Amino acid sequence: MSGFEPVDPNFESRVRASFAKQSAMASLGIVIDGIGPGWVDLGFAVPPGFTQQAGFVHAGVVAAALDSACGYAAYTLAAAETDVVTSEYKINLLRPAVGKAFIARGWVVKPGKTLTVSQGELTAGEGGPALAIMTGTIVHLPSATG
Amino acid sequence: MSGFEPVDPNFESRVRASFAKQSAMASLGIVIDGIGPGWVDLGFAVPPGFTQQAGFVHAGVVAAALDSACGYAAYTLAAAETDVVTSEYKINLLRPAVGKAFIARGWVVKPGKTLTVSQGELTAGEGGPALAIMTGTIVHLPSATG
Amino acid sequence: MSGFEPVDPNFESRVRASFAKQSAMASLGIVIDGIGPGWVDLGFAVPPGFTQQAGFVHAGVVAAALDSACGYAAYTLAAAETDVVTSEYKINLLRPAVGKAFIARGWVVKPGKTLTVSQGELTAGEGGPALAIMTGTIVHLPSATG
Amino acid sequence: MSGFEPVDPNFESRVRASFAKQSAMASLGIVIDGIGPGWVDLGFAVPPGFTQQAGFVHAGVVAAALDSACGYAAYTLAAAETDVVTSEYKINLLRPAVGKAFIARGWVVKPGKTLTVSQGELTAGEGGPALAIMTGTIVHLPSATG
Repeated sequence: MSGFEPVDPNFESRVRASFAKQSAMASLGIVIDGIGPGWVDLGFAVPPGFTQQAGFVHAGVVAAALDSACGYAAYTLAAAETDVVTSEYKINLLRPAVGKAFIARGWVVKPGKTLTVSQGELTAGEGGPALAIMTGTIVHLPSATG
Repeated sequence: MSGFEPVDPNFESRVRASFAKQSAMASLGIVIDGIGPGWVDLGFAVPPGFTQQAGFVHAGVVAAALDSACGYAAYTLAAAETDVVTSEYKINLLRPAVGKAFIARGWVVKPGKTLTVSQGELTAGEGGPALAIMTGTIVHLPSATG
Repeated sequence: MSGFEPVDPNFESRVRASFAKQSAMASLGIVIDGIGPGWVDLGFAVPPGFTQQAGFVHAGVVAAALDSACGYAAYTLAAAETDVVTSEYKINLLRPAVGKAFIARGWVVKPGKTLTVSQGELTAGEGGPALAIMTGTIVHLPSATG
Repeated sequence: MSGFEPVDPNFESRVRASFAKQSAMASLGIVIDGIGPGWVDLGFAVPPGFTQQAGFVHAGVVAAALDSACGYAAYTLAAAETDVVTSEYKINLLRPAVGKAFIARGWVVKPGKTLTVSQGELTAGEGGPALAIMTGTIVHLPSATG
Protein backbone atom coordinates (compact mmCIF):
# COMPACT_ATOMS: atom_id res chain seq x y z
CA MET A 1 0.00 0.00 0.00
CA SER A 2 2.94 2.32 -0.42
CA GLY A 3 5.79 3.15 -2.69
CA PHE A 4 3.58 4.95 -5.19
CA GLU A 5 4.46 8.45 -6.34
CA PRO A 6 1.37 10.55 -7.04
CA VAL A 7 1.40 12.21 -10.47
CA ASP A 8 -0.77 15.06 -9.19
CA PRO A 9 0.48 16.67 -5.95
CA ASN A 10 -3.07 17.89 -5.27
CA PHE A 11 -4.47 14.36 -5.36
CA GLU A 12 -6.02 14.55 -1.91
CA SER A 13 -8.13 17.64 -2.53
CA ARG A 14 -9.12 16.24 -5.94
CA VAL A 15 -10.30 12.99 -4.33
CA ARG A 16 -12.18 14.80 -1.58
CA ALA A 17 -13.93 17.11 -4.07
CA SER A 18 -15.06 14.16 -6.20
CA PHE A 19 -16.20 12.18 -3.18
CA ALA A 20 -18.28 15.12 -1.97
CA LYS A 21 -20.27 15.05 -5.23
CA GLN A 22 -21.44 11.46 -4.66
CA SER A 23 -24.81 11.83 -2.97
CA ALA A 24 -24.91 8.08 -2.38
CA MET A 25 -21.94 8.30 0.01
CA ALA A 26 -23.66 11.02 2.04
CA SER A 27 -26.95 9.12 2.02
CA LEU A 28 -25.20 6.06 3.45
CA GLY A 29 -23.09 8.03 5.94
CA ILE A 30 -19.83 6.89 4.36
CA VAL A 31 -16.90 9.24 5.02
CA ILE A 32 -13.21 9.40 4.15
CA ASP A 33 -11.11 8.17 7.08
CA GLY A 34 -7.71 8.44 5.42
CA ILE A 35 -6.01 9.03 2.07
CA GLY A 36 -2.53 8.41 0.76
CA PRO A 37 -0.84 7.73 -2.57
CA GLY A 38 -2.49 4.52 -3.80
CA TRP A 39 -4.94 3.97 -0.93
CA VAL A 40 -8.12 5.26 0.64
CA ASP A 41 -9.93 4.32 3.85
CA LEU A 42 -13.67 4.87 4.07
CA GLY A 43 -15.60 4.57 7.33
CA PHE A 44 -19.27 4.04 8.09
CA ALA A 45 -21.72 2.78 10.69
CA VAL A 46 -24.83 0.71 9.99
CA PRO A 47 -26.97 3.07 7.89
CA PRO A 48 -30.61 3.17 9.08
CA GLY A 49 -32.85 1.57 6.48
CA PHE A 50 -30.08 -0.50 4.90
CA THR A 51 -30.16 -3.83 6.65
CA GLN A 52 -30.90 -7.22 5.12
CA GLN A 53 -33.27 -9.95 6.39
CA ALA A 54 -31.20 -10.75 9.50
CA GLY A 55 -30.60 -7.14 10.49
CA PHE A 56 -26.97 -6.92 9.33
CA VAL A 57 -25.61 -4.31 6.95
CA HIS A 58 -26.92 -4.98 3.45
CA ALA A 59 -24.38 -6.34 1.00
CA GLY A 60 -25.19 -3.43 -1.30
CA VAL A 61 -23.75 -1.01 1.24
CA VAL A 62 -20.64 -3.15 1.61
CA ALA A 63 -20.23 -3.26 -2.17
CA ALA A 64 -20.80 0.48 -2.57
CA ALA A 65 -18.21 1.28 0.11
CA LEU A 66 -15.59 -1.11 -1.27
CA ASP A 67 -16.23 0.00 -4.86
CA SER A 68 -15.71 3.62 -3.84
CA ALA A 69 -12.59 2.76 -1.85
CA CYS A 70 -11.09 0.88 -4.80
CA GLY A 71 -12.01 3.61 -7.26
CA TYR A 72 -10.69 6.48 -5.17
CA ALA A 73 -7.49 4.53 -4.43
CA ALA A 74 -6.95 4.49 -8.19
CA TYR A 75 -7.90 8.18 -8.38
CA THR A 76 -5.13 9.15 -5.93
CA LEU A 77 -2.59 8.11 -8.58
CA ALA A 78 -4.41 9.68 -11.54
CA ALA A 79 -3.39 12.79 -13.42
CA ALA A 80 -5.14 16.10 -12.80
CA GLU A 81 -8.12 16.81 -15.08
CA THR A 82 -9.09 13.15 -15.28
CA ASP A 83 -11.96 11.04 -13.98
CA VAL A 84 -12.23 7.39 -13.02
CA VAL A 85 -15.05 4.93 -13.54
CA THR A 86 -15.33 1.33 -12.36
CA SER A 87 -15.41 -1.12 -15.25
CA GLU A 88 -15.92 -4.30 -13.24
CA TYR A 89 -15.33 -5.85 -9.87
CA LYS A 90 -15.64 -9.14 -8.03
CA ILE A 91 -16.68 -9.16 -4.41
CA ASN A 92 -16.55 -12.05 -1.96
CA LEU A 93 -18.81 -11.70 1.07
CA LEU A 94 -16.75 -13.78 3.47
CA ARG A 95 -18.55 -13.25 6.76
CA PRO A 96 -21.76 -11.52 7.93
CA ALA A 97 -21.07 -7.80 8.28
CA VAL A 98 -21.65 -7.79 12.03
CA GLY A 99 -20.37 -4.72 13.82
CA LYS A 100 -21.09 -1.14 14.75
CA ALA A 101 -18.51 0.59 12.58
CA PHE A 102 -16.71 -0.54 9.46
CA ILE A 103 -13.61 0.34 7.49
CA ALA A 104 -13.53 -0.18 3.73
CA ARG A 105 -9.93 0.01 2.62
CA GLY A 106 -8.96 0.22 -1.05
CA TRP A 107 -5.44 0.05 -2.44
CA VAL A 108 -3.84 -0.05 -5.87
CA VAL A 109 -2.33 -3.34 -6.99
CA LYS A 110 -1.30 -2.25 -10.48
CA PRO A 111 -1.50 1.39 -11.54
CA GLY A 112 -1.84 2.43 -15.16
CA LYS A 113 -2.70 5.39 -17.35
CA THR A 114 -5.68 3.64 -18.92
CA LEU A 115 -6.55 0.89 -16.42
CA THR A 116 -5.80 0.50 -12.74
CA VAL A 117 -6.41 -2.67 -10.74
CA SER A 118 -7.33 -2.12 -7.09
CA GLN A 119 -8.22 -4.39 -4.22
CA GLY A 120 -10.33 -3.70 -1.17
CA GLU A 121 -11.14 -5.20 2.18
CA LEU A 122 -13.91 -4.57 4.68
CA THR A 123 -13.27 -5.00 8.39
CA ALA A 124 -15.20 -4.06 11.52
CA GLY A 125 -12.07 -2.42 12.87
CA GLU A 126 -8.32 -2.44 12.30
CA GLY A 127 -6.90 -5.92 12.79
CA GLY A 128 -10.22 -7.73 12.58
CA PRO A 129 -10.88 -10.47 10.05
CA ALA A 130 -11.83 -9.56 6.49
CA LEU A 131 -15.63 -9.46 6.19
CA ALA A 132 -15.51 -8.91 2.43
CA ILE A 133 -12.84 -8.56 -0.26
CA MET A 134 -12.94 -6.97 -3.69
CA THR A 135 -10.82 -6.86 -6.83
CA GLY A 136 -11.78 -4.25 -9.41
CA THR A 137 -10.74 -2.67 -12.69
CA ILE A 138 -10.90 1.11 -12.86
CA VAL A 139 -10.78 3.05 -16.13
CA HIS A 140 -9.13 6.47 -16.40
CA LEU A 141 -10.86 9.05 -18.58
CA PRO A 142 -10.39 12.71 -19.46
CA SER A 143 -12.41 14.79 -17.02
CA ALA A 144 -15.98 15.38 -18.20
CA THR A 145 -16.16 18.54 -16.14
CA GLY A 146 -12.54 19.68 -16.27
CA MET B 1 -34.97 -18.73 -18.07
CA SER B 2 -37.41 -21.60 -18.03
CA GLY B 3 -37.63 -25.32 -17.76
CA PHE B 4 -37.03 -25.33 -14.03
CA GLU B 5 -39.41 -27.17 -11.73
CA PRO B 6 -39.75 -25.43 -8.37
CA VAL B 7 -39.19 -27.73 -5.39
CA ASP B 8 -41.47 -25.62 -3.21
CA PRO B 9 -44.89 -24.84 -4.79
CA ASN B 10 -45.16 -21.80 -2.52
CA PHE B 11 -41.92 -20.30 -3.82
CA GLU B 12 -43.49 -17.01 -4.87
CA SER B 13 -44.97 -16.13 -1.49
CA ARG B 14 -41.72 -17.25 0.18
CA VAL B 15 -39.68 -14.94 -2.08
CA ARG B 16 -42.05 -12.03 -1.55
CA ALA B 17 -41.98 -12.46 2.24
CA SER B 18 -38.17 -12.48 2.30
CA PHE B 19 -37.94 -9.51 -0.04
CA ALA B 20 -40.29 -7.52 2.19
CA LYS B 21 -37.87 -7.92 5.11
CA GLN B 22 -35.01 -6.20 3.23
CA SER B 23 -35.22 -2.59 4.32
CA ALA B 24 -32.58 -1.67 1.76
CA MET B 25 -34.92 -2.58 -1.10
CA ALA B 26 -37.67 -0.35 0.30
CA SER B 27 -35.19 2.46 0.96
CA LEU B 28 -34.09 2.36 -2.67
CA GLY B 29 -37.60 1.97 -4.07
CA ILE B 30 -36.81 -1.42 -5.63
CA VAL B 31 -39.89 -3.60 -6.17
CA ILE B 32 -40.65 -7.05 -7.58
CA ASP B 33 -41.91 -6.76 -11.16
CA GLY B 34 -42.20 -10.47 -11.89
CA ILE B 35 -41.33 -13.92 -10.52
CA GLY B 36 -41.18 -17.36 -12.04
CA PRO B 37 -39.31 -20.62 -11.46
CA GLY B 38 -35.64 -19.66 -11.79
CA TRP B 39 -36.05 -15.94 -12.45
CA VAL B 40 -36.98 -12.65 -10.84
CA ASP B 41 -37.45 -9.16 -12.30
CA LEU B 42 -36.89 -6.16 -10.04
CA GLY B 43 -37.86 -2.64 -11.04
CA PHE B 44 -36.78 0.77 -9.81
CA ALA B 45 -36.51 4.43 -10.74
CA VAL B 46 -33.56 6.71 -9.91
CA PRO B 47 -33.64 6.82 -6.10
CA PRO B 48 -33.28 10.39 -4.75
CA GLY B 49 -29.95 10.75 -2.99
CA PHE B 50 -28.28 7.88 -4.84
CA THR B 51 -26.61 9.42 -7.82
CA GLN B 52 -22.90 9.51 -8.61
CA GLN B 53 -20.75 12.46 -9.72
CA ALA B 54 -22.43 12.85 -13.11
CA GLY B 55 -25.98 12.52 -11.82
CA PHE B 56 -26.58 8.94 -12.99
CA VAL B 57 -27.74 6.10 -10.77
CA HIS B 58 -24.93 5.10 -8.44
CA ALA B 59 -23.27 1.78 -9.22
CA GLY B 60 -24.05 0.66 -5.69
CA VAL B 61 -27.75 0.76 -6.48
CA VAL B 62 -27.21 -1.19 -9.68
CA ALA B 63 -25.18 -3.79 -7.79
CA ALA B 64 -27.73 -4.05 -4.98
CA ALA B 65 -30.58 -4.56 -7.44
CA LEU B 66 -28.73 -7.15 -9.53
CA ASP B 67 -27.44 -8.96 -6.43
CA SER B 68 -31.01 -9.22 -5.11
CA ALA B 69 -32.34 -10.34 -8.49
CA CYS B 70 -29.68 -13.08 -8.73
CA GLY B 71 -30.21 -14.20 -5.15
CA TYR B 72 -34.00 -14.32 -5.35
CA ALA B 73 -33.83 -16.13 -8.69
CA ALA B 74 -31.90 -18.85 -6.83
CA TYR B 75 -34.40 -18.67 -3.98
CA THR B 76 -37.33 -19.48 -6.31
CA LEU B 77 -35.83 -22.95 -6.80
CA ALA B 78 -34.90 -23.52 -3.14
CA ALA B 79 -36.63 -25.85 -0.72
CA ALA B 80 -39.04 -24.52 1.87
CA GLU B 81 -37.47 -23.66 5.24
CA THR B 82 -34.20 -22.56 3.67
CA ASP B 83 -32.40 -19.27 3.21
CA VAL B 84 -29.99 -17.99 0.58
CA VAL B 85 -26.93 -15.79 0.92
CA THR B 86 -24.67 -14.40 -1.79
CA SER B 87 -21.14 -15.79 -1.57
CA GLU B 88 -19.60 -13.77 -4.37
CA TYR B 89 -20.40 -11.98 -7.60
CA LYS B 90 -18.73 -10.21 -10.48
CA ILE B 91 -20.39 -7.19 -12.01
CA ASN B 92 -19.49 -5.44 -15.27
CA LEU B 93 -20.74 -1.88 -15.56
CA LEU B 94 -21.05 -1.77 -19.35
CA ARG B 95 -22.73 1.59 -19.94
CA PRO B 96 -23.76 4.58 -17.81
CA ALA B 97 -27.07 3.79 -16.12
CA VAL B 98 -28.96 6.51 -17.96
CA GLY B 99 -32.73 6.23 -17.83
CA LYS B 100 -35.82 6.90 -15.79
CA ALA B 101 -36.77 3.33 -14.92
CA PHE B 102 -34.70 0.18 -14.78
CA ILE B 103 -35.23 -3.57 -14.80
CA ALA B 104 -32.78 -5.85 -12.99
CA ARG B 105 -33.42 -9.38 -14.19
CA GLY B 106 -31.85 -12.39 -12.47
CA TRP B 107 -31.99 -15.98 -13.68
CA VAL B 108 -30.53 -19.30 -12.63
CA VAL B 109 -27.78 -20.74 -14.80
CA LYS B 110 -27.03 -23.82 -12.70
CA PRO B 111 -29.26 -24.77 -9.76
CA GLY B 112 -27.99 -26.81 -6.85
CA LYS B 113 -28.87 -27.87 -3.33
CA THR B 114 -25.76 -26.25 -1.86
CA LEU B 115 -24.71 -23.71 -4.49
CA THR B 116 -26.64 -22.01 -7.27
CA VAL B 117 -25.06 -19.92 -10.02
CA SER B 118 -27.22 -17.04 -11.28
CA GLN B 119 -26.73 -14.32 -13.84
CA GLY B 120 -28.31 -10.89 -14.02
CA GLU B 121 -28.73 -8.03 -16.44
CA LEU B 122 -29.75 -4.42 -15.99
CA THR B 123 -31.63 -2.61 -18.74
CA ALA B 124 -33.49 0.69 -18.93
CA GLY B 125 -36.45 -1.17 -20.41
CA GLU B 126 -37.25 -4.44 -22.14
CA GLY B 127 -35.21 -4.80 -25.32
CA GLY B 128 -32.67 -2.11 -24.49
CA PRO B 129 -28.94 -2.79 -24.33
CA ALA B 130 -27.45 -4.31 -21.20
CA LEU B 131 -26.22 -1.54 -18.90
CA ALA B 132 -24.66 -3.98 -16.45
CA ILE B 133 -24.26 -7.75 -16.15
CA MET B 134 -23.61 -9.97 -13.14
CA THR B 135 -22.60 -13.56 -12.41
CA GLY B 136 -22.96 -14.70 -8.82
CA THR B 137 -22.71 -17.71 -6.53
CA ILE B 138 -25.54 -18.16 -4.05
CA VAL B 139 -25.31 -20.49 -1.04
CA HIS B 140 -28.34 -22.36 0.28
CA LEU B 141 -28.65 -22.67 4.06
CA PRO B 142 -31.20 -24.03 6.51
CA SER B 143 -33.54 -21.23 7.48
CA ALA B 144 -32.31 -19.22 10.47
CA THR B 145 -35.84 -18.20 11.32
CA GLY B 146 -37.75 -21.25 10.07
CA MET C 1 -24.03 -12.66 -31.20
CA SER C 2 -24.88 -10.62 -34.24
CA GLY C 3 -25.52 -7.10 -35.38
CA PHE C 4 -21.89 -6.07 -35.17
CA GLU C 5 -20.17 -4.39 -38.10
CA PRO C 6 -16.49 -5.30 -38.34
CA VAL C 7 -14.17 -2.29 -38.62
CA ASP C 8 -11.61 -4.34 -40.52
CA PRO C 9 -13.04 -6.31 -43.47
CA ASN C 10 -10.08 -8.68 -43.24
CA PHE C 11 -10.88 -9.58 -39.64
CA GLU C 12 -11.11 -13.31 -40.29
CA SER C 13 -7.66 -13.70 -41.82
CA ARG C 14 -6.22 -11.45 -39.08
CA VAL C 15 -7.78 -13.63 -36.36
CA ARG C 16 -6.60 -16.85 -38.02
CA ALA C 17 -3.04 -15.51 -38.40
CA SER C 18 -2.87 -14.52 -34.73
CA PHE C 19 -4.39 -17.81 -33.58
CA ALA C 20 -1.80 -19.76 -35.58
CA LYS C 21 1.02 -18.06 -33.61
CA GLN C 22 -0.28 -19.40 -30.27
CA SER C 23 1.66 -22.59 -29.72
CA ALA C 24 -0.51 -23.40 -26.71
CA MET C 25 -3.56 -23.80 -28.93
CA ALA C 26 -1.73 -26.27 -31.18
CA SER C 27 -0.31 -28.13 -28.19
CA LEU C 28 -3.83 -28.60 -26.81
CA GLY C 29 -5.38 -29.45 -30.18
CA ILE C 30 -7.70 -26.44 -30.07
CA VAL C 31 -8.88 -25.30 -33.51
CA ILE C 32 -11.13 -22.59 -34.93
CA ASP C 33 -14.55 -24.03 -35.77
CA GLY C 34 -16.21 -20.79 -36.85
CA ILE C 35 -15.72 -17.01 -36.96
CA GLY C 36 -18.07 -14.10 -37.49
CA PRO C 37 -18.26 -10.44 -36.50
CA GLY C 38 -18.24 -10.48 -32.71
CA TRP C 39 -17.98 -14.24 -32.15
CA VAL C 40 -15.59 -17.18 -32.41
CA ASP C 41 -16.12 -20.92 -31.91
CA LEU C 42 -13.16 -23.06 -30.87
CA GLY C 43 -13.29 -26.85 -30.88
CA PHE C 44 -11.19 -29.49 -29.15
CA ALA C 45 -11.17 -33.07 -27.93
CA VAL C 46 -9.70 -34.27 -24.62
CA PRO C 47 -5.97 -33.48 -25.02
CA PRO C 48 -3.77 -36.44 -23.96
CA GLY C 49 -1.88 -35.52 -20.81
CA PHE C 50 -4.34 -32.85 -19.72
CA THR C 51 -6.79 -34.59 -17.45
CA GLN C 52 -7.42 -33.93 -13.77
CA GLN C 53 -7.69 -36.43 -10.90
CA ALA C 54 -10.92 -38.02 -12.13
CA GLY C 55 -9.86 -38.28 -15.76
CA PHE C 56 -11.91 -35.35 -17.07
CA VAL C 57 -10.51 -32.45 -19.07
CA HIS C 58 -8.43 -30.25 -16.78
CA ALA C 59 -9.99 -26.90 -15.89
CA GLY C 60 -6.87 -25.21 -17.23
CA VAL C 61 -7.72 -26.42 -20.73
CA VAL C 62 -11.29 -25.21 -20.36
CA ALA C 63 -10.07 -21.82 -19.18
CA ALA C 64 -7.48 -21.55 -21.97
CA ALA C 65 -10.07 -22.37 -24.62
CA LEU C 66 -12.69 -19.97 -23.26
CA ASP C 67 -10.12 -17.22 -22.73
CA SER C 68 -9.01 -17.55 -26.34
CA ALA C 69 -12.60 -17.64 -27.60
CA CYS C 70 -13.45 -14.45 -25.66
CA GLY C 71 -10.28 -12.70 -26.76
CA TYR C 72 -10.62 -13.57 -30.43
CA ALA C 73 -14.31 -12.62 -30.39
CA ALA C 74 -13.13 -9.15 -29.33
CA TYR C 75 -10.39 -9.27 -31.98
CA THR C 76 -12.93 -9.79 -34.79
CA LEU C 77 -14.24 -6.28 -34.11
CA ALA C 78 -10.83 -4.64 -33.67
CA ALA C 79 -9.12 -2.31 -36.12
CA ALA C 80 -6.34 -3.54 -38.37
CA GLU C 81 -2.82 -3.17 -36.96
CA THR C 82 -3.97 -3.76 -33.39
CA ASP C 83 -3.55 -6.51 -30.82
CA VAL C 84 -5.69 -7.72 -27.95
CA VAL C 85 -4.72 -8.93 -24.51
CA THR C 86 -6.92 -10.31 -21.75
CA SER C 87 -6.95 -8.07 -18.69
CA GLU C 88 -9.11 -10.23 -16.45
CA TYR C 89 -11.79 -12.88 -16.51
CA LYS C 90 -14.09 -14.81 -14.22
CA ILE C 91 -14.87 -18.42 -14.97
CA ASN C 92 -17.54 -20.60 -13.40
CA LEU C 93 -16.98 -24.33 -13.74
CA LEU C 94 -20.61 -25.41 -13.66
CA ARG C 95 -20.39 -29.11 -14.43
CA PRO C 96 -17.60 -31.69 -14.93
CA ALA C 97 -16.26 -31.37 -18.47
CA VAL C 98 -17.42 -34.84 -19.48
CA GLY C 99 -17.46 -35.48 -23.19
CA LYS C 100 -15.41 -36.41 -26.21
CA ALA C 101 -15.48 -33.09 -28.05
CA PHE C 102 -16.08 -29.59 -26.82
CA ILE C 103 -17.07 -26.20 -28.21
CA ALA C 104 -15.82 -23.02 -26.56
CA ARG C 105 -17.91 -20.16 -27.89
CA GLY C 106 -16.94 -16.54 -27.25
CA TRP C 107 -19.06 -13.49 -28.12
CA VAL C 108 -18.81 -9.76 -27.59
CA VAL C 109 -21.20 -8.23 -25.08
CA LYS C 110 -19.91 -4.65 -25.27
CA PRO C 111 -17.38 -3.62 -27.92
CA GLY C 112 -15.04 -0.70 -27.43
CA LYS C 113 -11.92 0.90 -28.84
CA THR C 114 -10.00 0.52 -25.59
CA LEU C 115 -11.88 -2.23 -23.74
CA THR C 116 -14.19 -4.97 -24.95
CA VAL C 117 -16.27 -7.19 -22.67
CA SER C 118 -16.84 -10.72 -23.96
CA GLN C 119 -18.62 -13.76 -22.61
CA GLY C 120 -17.97 -17.41 -23.32
CA GLU C 121 -19.61 -20.78 -22.83
CA LEU C 122 -18.29 -24.32 -23.01
CA THR C 123 -20.55 -27.14 -24.16
CA ALA C 124 -19.94 -30.75 -25.16
CA GLY C 125 -21.94 -30.10 -28.33
CA GLU C 126 -24.46 -27.66 -29.70
CA GLY C 127 -27.57 -27.54 -27.52
CA GLY C 128 -26.02 -29.24 -24.53
CA PRO C 129 -25.91 -27.63 -21.10
CA ALA C 130 -23.22 -25.08 -20.29
CA LEU C 131 -20.26 -26.83 -18.67
CA ALA C 132 -18.46 -23.56 -17.94
CA ILE C 133 -19.12 -19.85 -18.47
CA MET C 134 -16.75 -16.89 -18.64
CA THR C 135 -16.92 -13.11 -18.58
CA GLY C 136 -13.74 -11.27 -19.53
CA THR C 137 -12.28 -7.84 -20.19
CA ILE C 138 -10.07 -7.55 -23.26
CA VAL C 139 -7.75 -4.59 -23.86
CA HIS C 140 -7.03 -3.28 -27.35
CA LEU C 141 -3.46 -2.18 -28.08
CA PRO C 142 -1.49 -0.95 -31.09
CA SER C 143 0.08 -3.94 -32.78
CA ALA C 144 3.51 -4.81 -31.40
CA THR C 145 4.47 -6.43 -34.66
CA GLY C 146 2.45 -4.29 -37.08
CA MET D 1 -0.84 -17.21 5.34
CA SER D 2 -0.56 -18.77 8.78
CA GLY D 3 -2.48 -19.37 11.94
CA PHE D 4 -4.50 -22.21 10.46
CA GLU D 5 -4.71 -25.54 12.24
CA PRO D 6 -4.95 -28.45 9.80
CA VAL D 7 -7.85 -30.82 10.54
CA ASP D 8 -5.96 -33.72 8.99
CA PRO D 9 -2.38 -34.15 10.30
CA ASN D 10 -1.51 -36.01 7.09
CA PHE D 11 -2.55 -33.10 4.90
CA GLU D 12 0.80 -32.83 3.14
CA SER D 13 0.92 -36.41 1.89
CA ARG D 14 -2.76 -36.17 0.90
CA VAL D 15 -2.05 -33.03 -1.14
CA ARG D 16 1.01 -34.54 -2.79
CA ALA D 17 -0.87 -37.73 -3.70
CA SER D 18 -3.70 -35.76 -5.32
CA PHE D 19 -1.29 -33.46 -7.14
CA ALA D 20 0.54 -36.46 -8.57
CA LYS D 21 -2.69 -37.66 -10.23
CA GLN D 22 -3.07 -34.46 -12.26
CA SER D 23 -1.45 -35.24 -15.58
CA ALA D 24 -1.81 -31.62 -16.61
CA MET D 25 0.64 -30.52 -13.90
CA ALA D 26 3.25 -33.01 -15.11
CA SER D 27 2.65 -32.06 -18.74
CA LEU D 28 3.31 -28.40 -17.91
CA GLY D 29 6.28 -29.12 -15.62
CA ILE D 30 4.56 -27.62 -12.59
CA VAL D 31 5.86 -28.93 -9.26
CA ILE D 32 5.18 -28.38 -5.58
CA ASP D 33 7.76 -26.00 -4.09
CA GLY D 34 6.30 -25.80 -0.60
CA ILE D 35 3.25 -26.71 1.49
CA GLY D 36 1.95 -25.56 4.84
CA PRO D 37 -1.41 -25.28 6.59
CA GLY D 38 -3.46 -23.00 4.35
CA TRP D 39 -0.90 -22.40 1.63
CA VAL D 40 0.87 -24.03 -1.31
CA ASP D 41 3.68 -22.83 -3.57
CA LEU D 42 3.92 -24.24 -7.09
CA GLY D 43 6.94 -23.68 -9.32
CA PHE D 44 7.44 -23.92 -13.06
CA ALA D 45 9.58 -22.74 -15.96
CA VAL D 46 8.29 -21.74 -19.40
CA PRO D 47 6.78 -24.98 -20.72
CA PRO D 48 7.88 -25.70 -24.32
CA GLY D 49 4.88 -25.38 -26.63
CA PHE D 50 2.91 -23.13 -24.29
CA THR D 51 3.77 -19.62 -25.30
CA GLN D 52 1.44 -16.98 -26.69
CA GLN D 53 1.91 -14.71 -29.72
CA ALA D 54 4.78 -12.70 -28.21
CA GLY D 55 6.67 -15.70 -26.83
CA PHE D 56 5.66 -15.28 -23.19
CA VAL D 57 4.06 -17.95 -21.05
CA HIS D 58 0.48 -18.48 -22.18
CA ALA D 59 -2.17 -17.15 -19.80
CA GLY D 60 -3.69 -20.62 -19.70
CA VAL D 61 -0.58 -21.93 -17.97
CA VAL D 62 -0.67 -19.06 -15.49
CA ALA D 63 -4.34 -19.74 -14.77
CA ALA D 64 -3.81 -23.49 -14.42
CA ALA D 65 -0.95 -22.97 -11.97
CA LEU D 66 -2.81 -20.40 -9.86
CA ASP D 67 -6.02 -22.44 -9.91
CA SER D 68 -4.09 -25.47 -8.64
CA ALA D 69 -2.29 -23.41 -6.01
CA CYS D 70 -5.59 -21.96 -4.73
CA GLY D 71 -7.31 -25.34 -4.76
CA TYR D 72 -4.52 -27.19 -2.98
CA ALA D 73 -4.20 -24.40 -0.42
CA ALA D 74 -7.85 -25.13 0.44
CA TYR D 75 -7.12 -28.85 0.39
CA THR D 76 -4.42 -28.50 3.08
CA LEU D 77 -7.17 -27.51 5.55
CA ALA D 78 -9.70 -30.13 4.42
CA ALA D 79 -10.69 -33.25 6.32
CA ALA D 80 -9.32 -36.65 5.33
CA GLU D 81 -11.42 -38.60 2.83
CA THR D 82 -12.57 -35.46 1.05
CA ASP D 83 -11.94 -33.89 -2.32
CA VAL D 84 -11.93 -30.28 -3.55
CA VAL D 85 -13.13 -28.82 -6.80
CA THR D 86 -12.91 -25.24 -8.03
CA SER D 87 -16.32 -23.65 -8.42
CA GLU D 88 -15.21 -20.31 -9.84
CA TYR D 89 -12.31 -17.90 -9.95
CA LYS D 90 -11.37 -14.47 -11.19
CA ILE D 91 -7.89 -13.85 -12.53
CA ASN D 92 -6.25 -10.52 -13.31
CA LEU D 93 -3.31 -10.71 -15.69
CA LEU D 94 -1.43 -7.67 -14.40
CA ARG D 95 1.84 -7.83 -16.31
CA PRO D 96 3.30 -10.00 -19.11
CA ALA D 97 4.59 -13.23 -17.60
CA VAL D 98 8.21 -12.50 -18.50
CA GLY D 99 10.76 -14.63 -16.71
CA LYS D 100 12.52 -17.96 -16.64
CA ALA D 101 10.95 -19.44 -13.53
CA PHE D 102 7.69 -18.66 -11.78
CA ILE D 103 6.09 -19.17 -8.39
CA ALA D 104 2.32 -19.56 -8.11
CA ARG D 105 1.41 -19.11 -4.46
CA GLY D 106 -2.06 -19.92 -3.16
CA TRP D 107 -3.37 -19.19 0.34
CA VAL D 108 -6.64 -19.54 2.16
CA VAL D 109 -8.50 -16.32 2.94
CA LYS D 110 -11.59 -17.90 4.52
CA PRO D 111 -11.70 -21.63 5.29
CA GLY D 112 -14.95 -23.55 5.52
CA LYS D 113 -16.36 -27.06 5.60
CA THR D 114 -18.39 -26.53 2.44
CA LEU D 115 -16.69 -23.58 0.74
CA THR D 116 -13.20 -22.16 1.03
CA VAL D 117 -12.08 -18.87 -0.49
CA SER D 118 -8.44 -18.75 -1.59
CA GLN D 119 -6.27 -16.16 -3.24
CA GLY D 120 -3.22 -16.61 -5.41
CA GLU D 121 -0.35 -14.61 -6.84
CA LEU D 122 2.13 -15.31 -9.61
CA THR D 123 5.63 -13.87 -9.42
CA ALA D 124 8.83 -14.49 -11.35
CA GLY D 125 10.63 -14.93 -8.05
CA GLU D 126 10.21 -14.12 -4.38
CA GLY D 127 9.85 -10.36 -3.87
CA GLY D 128 9.09 -9.55 -7.49
CA PRO D 129 5.93 -7.74 -8.54
CA ALA D 130 2.69 -9.68 -8.93
CA LEU D 131 2.30 -10.79 -12.55
CA ALA D 132 -1.18 -12.18 -11.97
CA ILE D 133 -3.61 -12.46 -9.06
CA MET D 134 -6.54 -14.81 -8.46
CA THR D 135 -9.49 -15.11 -6.10
CA GLY D 136 -11.35 -18.41 -6.18
CA THR D 137 -14.11 -20.40 -4.50
CA ILE D 138 -13.32 -24.03 -3.75
CA VAL D 139 -16.00 -26.60 -2.89
CA HIS D 140 -15.34 -29.46 -0.46
CA LEU D 141 -16.85 -32.83 -1.33
CA PRO D 142 -16.75 -36.35 0.07
CA SER D 143 -13.94 -38.24 -1.62
CA ALA D 144 -15.02 -39.97 -4.81
CA THR D 145 -12.25 -42.50 -4.45
CA GLY D 146 -11.91 -42.64 -0.68
